[in-house]
Amino acid sequence: MGDKPIRKQDGSSFIQHYYQLYDNDRTLLDAIYIDESCLTWEGQKFLGKAAIVEKLSRLLFQKVQHSIMAQGHQPMPESCIISMVVGRCKDENPIMEFHQMFLLKNINDAWVCTNDIFRLALYNFG
Amino acid sequence: MGDKPIRKQDGSSFIQHYYQLYDNDRTLLDAIYIDESCLTWEGQKFLGKAAIVEKLSRLLFQKVQHSIMAQGHQPMPESCIISMVVGRCKDENPIMEFHQMFLLKNINDAWVCTNDIFRLALYNFG
Repeated sequence: MGDKPIRKQDGSSFIQHYYQLYDNDRTLLDAIYIDESCLTWEGQKFLGKAAIVEKLSRLLFQKVQHSIMAQGHQPMPESCIISMVVGRCKDENPIMEFHQMFLLKNINDAWVCTNDIFRLALYNFG
Repeated sequence: MGDKPIRKQDGSSFIQHYYQLYDNDRTLLDAIYIDESCLTWEGQKFLGKAAIVEKLSRLLFQKVQHSIMAQGHQPMPESCIISMVVGRCKDENPIMEFHQMFLLKNINDAWVCTNDIFRLALYNFG
């Protein structure tokens, strides 16, 4: 089987879907990660779907809302997309900026995240 | 031949080297990109070493200095590293924040950049 064709909107559709799940119910991100996924969250590494979703579910805020300020995507070989996002998130605390990148892979017609690096722009608030 | 082993410092060593070349003489970035490289610079795409280095060389500032505030790296299959950088750059204008991600690949014992997405944090200055 050849690579699945990548449509121009696939990256931005994924990003919209990802933060919708995140803001509605973080445990639903279970559908986004796989057992081979790797998350680096503020320098800490989490390997595999279970560890990643546990980390995201245990973040201290109850409700959060992400808004995207800029995003970029590049198609990659083997049905992959590499994406970079800059945005703001609002929980019970003041609005903070964040930076996140994803490597996405199309498996059985669904986009999953194999690599995720996330950082809050804490240095803006020093 | 198996994958080349990735050392923990390979990602950060590349980042240091990349911005040293950038700040000293942008035309030296020729050594970093290959003909298959893709740069998305503020939403504009540039394909291949020649187009990328031409774009970077033609940026309007004469001198620039990058400083890194945060970086993260994950090893990938096939001797690759995925990296995210948040930093500040200073040219003749006020200091600006930037976000950049790289996909690095080890080819013949050298790290080259196959994918690069760069964005200035212009929205902070609106």
